[in-house]
Amino acid sequence: MSGMKTNPGNFFEDFTVGQVIDHATPRTVTEGDRALYGAIYPTRFALPSSAEFAASVGLAQHPVEELVGFHIAFGKTVPDVSLNAVANLGYAECRFHVPVVPGDTLRTRSEVIGLKENSNGRTGVVWVRSTATNQRGEVAIDWARWVMVHKRSSDSPAPETVVPTLASAVAPEDLVVPAGLDFSAYDRVAAGSPHLLDDYEVGERIDHVDGVTLTDAEHMMATRLWQNTAKVHFSTEVRPDGRRLVYGGHVISLARALSFNGLANAQLVAAINAGAHVAPAFAGDTVHAWSEVLDTVVLDAPGLGALRLRLVATKGRDESMTLRRDDPSTGSGQAAYADGVLLDLDYWAFVPR
Amino acid sequence: MSGMKTNPGNFFEDFTVGQVIDHATPRTVTEGDRALYGAIYPTRFALPSSAEFAASVGLAQHPVEELVGFHIAFGKTVPDVSLNAVANLGYAECRFHVPVVPGDTLRTRSEVIGLKENSNGRTGVVWVRSTATNQRGEVAIDWARWVMVHKRSSDSPAPETVVPTLASAVAPEDLVVPAGLDFSAYDRVAAGSPHLLDDYEVGERIDHVDGVTLTDAEHMMATRLWQNTAKVHFSTEVRPDGRRLVYGGHVISLARALSFNGLANAQLVAAINAGAHVAPAFAGDTVHAWSEVLDTVVLDAPGLGALRLRLVATKGRDESMTLRRDDPSTGSGQAAYADGVLLDLDYWAFVPR
Amino acid sequence: MSGMKTNPGNFFEDFTVGQVIDHATPRTVTEGDRALYGAIYPTRFALPSSAEFAASVGLAQHPVEELVGFHIAFGKTVPDVSLNAVANLGYAECRFHVPVVPGDTLRTRSEVIGLKENSNGRTGVVWVRSTATNQRGEVAIDWARWVMVHKRSSDSPAPETVVPTLASAVAPEDLVVPAGLDFSAYDRVAAGSPHLLDDYEVGERIDHVDGVTLTDAEHMMATRLWQNTAKVHFSTEVRPDGRRLVYGGHVISLARALSFNGLANAQLVAAINAGAHVAPAFAGDTVHAWSEVLDTVVLDAPGLGALRLRLVATKGRDESMTLRRDDPSTGSGQAAYADGVLLDLDYWAFVPR
Repeated sequence: MSGMKTNPGNFFEDFTVGQVIDHATPRTVTEGDRALYGAIYPTRFALPSSAEFAASVGLAQHPVEELVGFHIAFGKTVPDVSLNAVANLGYAECRFHVPVVPGDTLRTRSEVIGLKENSNGRTGVVWVRSTATNQRGEVAIDWARWVMVHKRSSDSPAPETVVPTLASAVAPEDLVVPAGLDFSAYDRVAAGSPHLLDDYEVGERIDHVDGVTLTDAEHMMATRLWQNTAKVHFSTEVRPDGRRLVYGGHVISLARALSFNGLANAQLVAAINAGAHVAPAFAGDTVHAWSEVLDTVVLDAPGLGALRLRLVATKGRDESMTLRRDDPSTGSGQAAYADGVLLDLDYWAFVPR
Repeated sequence: MSGMKTNPGNFFEDFTVGQVIDHATPRTVTEGDRALYGAIYPTRFALPSSAEFAASVGLAQHPVEELVGFHIAFGKTVPDVSLNAVANLGYAECRFHVPVVPGDTLRTRSEVIGLKENSNGRTGVVWVRSTATNQRGEVAIDWARWVMVHKRSSDSPAPETVVPTLASAVAPEDLVVPAGLDFSAYDRVAAGSPHLLDDYEVGERIDHVDGVTLTDAEHMMATRLWQNTAKVHFSTEVRPDGRRLVYGGHVISLARALSFNGLANAQLVAAINAGAHVAPAFAGDTVHAWSEVLDTVVLDAPGLGALRLRLVATKGRDESMTLRRDDPSTGSGQAAYADGVLLDLDYWAFVPR
Repeated sequence: MSGMKTNPGNFFEDFTVGQVIDHATPRTVTEGDRALYGAIYPTRFALPSSAEFAASVGLAQHPVEELVGFHIAFGKTVPDVSLNAVANLGYAECRFHVPVVPGDTLRTRSEVIGLKENSNGRTGVVWVRSTATNQRGEVAIDWARWVMVHKRSSDSPAPETVVPTLASAVAPEDLVVPAGLDFSAYDRVAAGSPHLLDDYEVGERIDHVDGVTLTDAEHMMATRLWQNTAKVHFSTEVRPDGRRLVYGGHVISLARALSFNGLANAQLVAAINAGAHVAPAFAGDTVHAWSEVLDTVVLDAPGLGALRLRLVATKGRDESMTLRRDDPSTGSGQAAYADGVLLDLDYWAFVPR
């Protein structure tokens, strides 16, 4: 016998800048994942729904939704990065490179790119840049993320503070257009919306209308599918209130799926610029979503444009589509969010122009 | 910006006889759908369960259950036809043509074949004939359906009344036998029942015994799988009682699966003659089913016969197998159904003879 | 009409020693099953998770978890063997032969190998040996099982008592190593644990730490997936307390998945030596697991060893990792289990050495 067999996770002291972690559990994506994603989220985007549609826009294979890959890749980092996390503080610079298709096997590697002990001496912030690759070694997704992690001991000395510089948004010229993607013969009838890039204006807000009431069975199934086994999502014994915390990524996927109603042509997620899980969600909450158009750009690819969107998930419908009570126009991570805001996500999507 | 981005659905005024609607969201069927169907419904029919069994009865590929195709094809019509529906009034003339197999992509087109404003001036009935085709343009399923839809305004003038003539049942000679289907070497042991066509008598009723208590997670997952996103199924905010209405198709599939116990050799649904969702179902209800043999026919295909069956789903077990209190022998759409009846479905199934 | 169409199941009188039963419903395994298994159970074993990992250890195809095959094969026996069972008494001599891969179609055949009427004259014990074969006729899994079954009538004479001799454990030399399996280049980083055969000591106990709170939707979906339709799992109308009994196999799979945290390299289940479902489980129960190392053996295959493990599932976490209050060292079927013990399973797993 050689000591502890179960994973205690890493504490703040276990991280050093430059450290590289190869995460466990390579995972092969299958058509079963596509089906479950469609059973758990009310998605109707034509491209991941239909192999014929994907072929009609130039893709050699039929990708799953970008968030399938993201959740799988992200889930691998949890046992090493955030098992002892107090909070997920943010995402940045997430880009989707080679589309993920059934048969691909994803692995994730992370590099620690920043450390900062908190003044309380009991926790610190860890920044990592993670890269998911497929079985051919091609980058599928990469992103930066920072989490607040417990120290093992408040007596441990603080490391040198390194705070990485992260872009507030992925620049449009850095978006990766999937090989072959061509929206010049895009079928808007099949896609379910006539609206092209030019139909959206910066500052426009879209109430996605529909709502979904959460159940424990569904969020647990989703979270397991991504092999994210943080126990707070699965056991009623962890929180004092006996509730199972919904994985933040579940709210992202739910809001993204709800956004179909108003953004049906925002077919692919190209990048995630920033994201904040503003409040916890639980079974019984009814999740709604609204979007704000932050930017519109024409891309140098046939028929392609991109929308930069703020996607806001709320508990209960927020017909006023505001983020905060006193000043709806600023909703940065520092803002005081209105009650009921669950998620504030900033991302790029490819759309036809 | 060019106006409303979300789908308001069509109102009664938006329909004209002869109008053709190409519905959005082509959908590729996968083995994931087969697995989820088997996880959500207690089906054990050997043909959709086993690729070997399907091959042994002459099918070149392994079809999914006919209702998988039906629900997917039907779901596409919801955003255009029934988003503003008051009620689904009925189905007729539904036939299954080319079997749906994993890899197929289904699209649905509907034609408006009838309109009749109700005397209240606030609603009207719309009849549509819908056709689902696969990626080769072959008809997979077609059916007629009529729904009561809200008018946008009670001031709108009534359209000319057109009521289509629909058959009360698909004629046996119009049933489409899948290419190659041959029951002459049918394996009754593998199928789980010794009973052939001749073992069933017109008028015979079969209590399927087993019951399943509904959960919200399961009916929502099923309904999303079919991309049917009518909000009453997903949100506790829609109905005054805070309950999520179970999609009627969920009850159909559940009752059909329960009917295995007594009708294990009714391997394929060939046609749906009529269907009425008599009462709403909710989580916590325990669904049972019974069947009545309405007709038996020998078909001109090797080893093949067909049973015309009434499939009745009830809330709680109805051991008396009656549809209504006063006259159990008549259960038409006009009948006063007994409390507890959820579904009254009239369909044809292929059986070995 | 030829009599009863629904399956009444077999009573004790219907079994004779030597009788062979070919069970119904051959079932093709798909990638959808793999995905659902991963959604329902928190499994992270690298081999069933990743086709690349499976190839790296010499397997020509990517098997599903052994318990997927076991539950499917076992489910087929329920309608014939245990529909009228009072209790599942035990398992023995379960071996996994040819790995089950997507595309395989499983069938199950059972032979009655023992009968013993109970002294009350109302029930009896039936022993069967069941064999699941794939579409090529290769044995995938076989096992012995015994159940207590109702007699149709207490007046029926007792049969001659035949009690089969069953091994208390599968001998290491009888474990079937899958063709090609080679752990000599095993990737422990990908697998998520550095611990090899030698790191485990007989008598060592591992608390798997994590817990999962059961929901009705999840256990019903799992149980249907295996086509096990025993009604007590699905209907609130069966038990006086209105609760749906969780299928024992659900607890096995959940406990096995939880055991990843501490036994990540126990990649494949090689055999099940014994199993007892000690207490019923219900929605709302939080399931934990611990394991005890019963034996360690070096196998004559490259890089391969086997661990014999006791896997204990408990309701609530049992940090003391004891089976019974008075004597934790003996946990045989006859033992008085502590409150909260749900499952006591004895199995072999292949590990790298």
